[in-house]
Amino acid sequence: MPRTEIHLNPIGIIHTPHTKLDEIPIQPVFCEGIEGEVVLDPQYAEGLEGIEAFSHIYLFFHFHAAKKTSLRTIPYLSDEEMGVFATRSPSRPNKIGLSLVRLIGVENNIIKVSDIDIMNGTPLLDVKPYVQRFDSRESAHSGWQDQISEESVKARSKRNFRK
Amino acid sequence: MPRTEIHLNPIGIIHTPHTKLDEIPIQPVFCEGIEGEVVLDPQYAEGLEGIEAFSHIYLFFHFHAAKKTSLRTIPYLSDEEMGVFATRSPSRPNKIGLSLVRLIGVENNIIKVSDIDIMNGTPLLDVKPYVQRFDSRESAHSGWQDQISEESVKARSKRNFRK
Repeated sequence: MPRTEIHLNPIGIIHTPHTKLDEIPIQPVFCEGIEGEVVLDPQYAEGLEGIEAFSHIYLFFHFHAAKKTSLRTIPYLSDEEMGVFATRSPSRPNKIGLSLVRLIGVENNIIKVSDIDIMNGTPLLDVKPYVQRFDSRESAHSGWQDQISEESVKARSKRNFRK
Repeated sequence: MPRTEIHLNPIGIIHTPHTKLDEIPIQPVFCEGIEGEVVLDPQYAEGLEGIEAFSHIYLFFHFHAAKKTSLRTIPYLSDEEMGVFATRSPSRPNKIGLSLVRLIGVENNIIKVSDIDIMNGTPLLDVKPYVQRFDSRESAHSGWQDQISEESVKARSKRNFRK
């Protein structure tokens, strides 16, 4: 099937204390208190007006360090192989990452955030506000994720991270 | 600042009953019961294994019909102009859309979904599972969104949509 290729230009860079891929916890909820800076290219600073009043924002980024693409993968929280679209693994066909982080403050073109699980130097693609009434589904169930005990999640989620 | 351009190839097409841009409600939560089909190119079908057990999934797509880019915008729920990154408007620099939809079922390379707010024929970029413990923030506050009354949200959110 012919498809039009889509070209994106990063709008900034994400700075974090995470410099080794295998030492990054798997999700922002396991990165409480870890701070980072989202530095937009100055020409985009105007687009941030109003964002400082949100407590949480989505960062869309490029998994630039992920070289591999694989349609089947074993996620960190499981021992079973499954389809990559049933996981949050970076080894997906289009390497778009999504992190929901806590906003601390905005200064010109820089957003200070906390609870960040992103590799240092990651290219930023987009920022969107988190809105509880649009973005939460209280009744959701989560397939294989629901079968993992809280102990197992705690033990596996931080990977090799050391504070 | 020099940047590496990122090239993405759509992995499928999203089919919905929405054929006119100005008749699409602004978020999936206002599209209850509206069904659609996410048709992946057959070579990606293997990546869907396990996703059928999730009740909700994120669709990442290209706002292909959005021609305009503007760093300031007036969102549908407000009368005030603000930075585009404080809104979910399509007129953002990188036209990546995110919708959280309800999964009905999977058949080979086709995902049947409900509560869909996406234009018919939209290129699909990625699918990720929604996991309540990663993706919800109960204590969140939402800036200008919190100042809009429920009546106003109800009146504005459906735009020109007619069932």
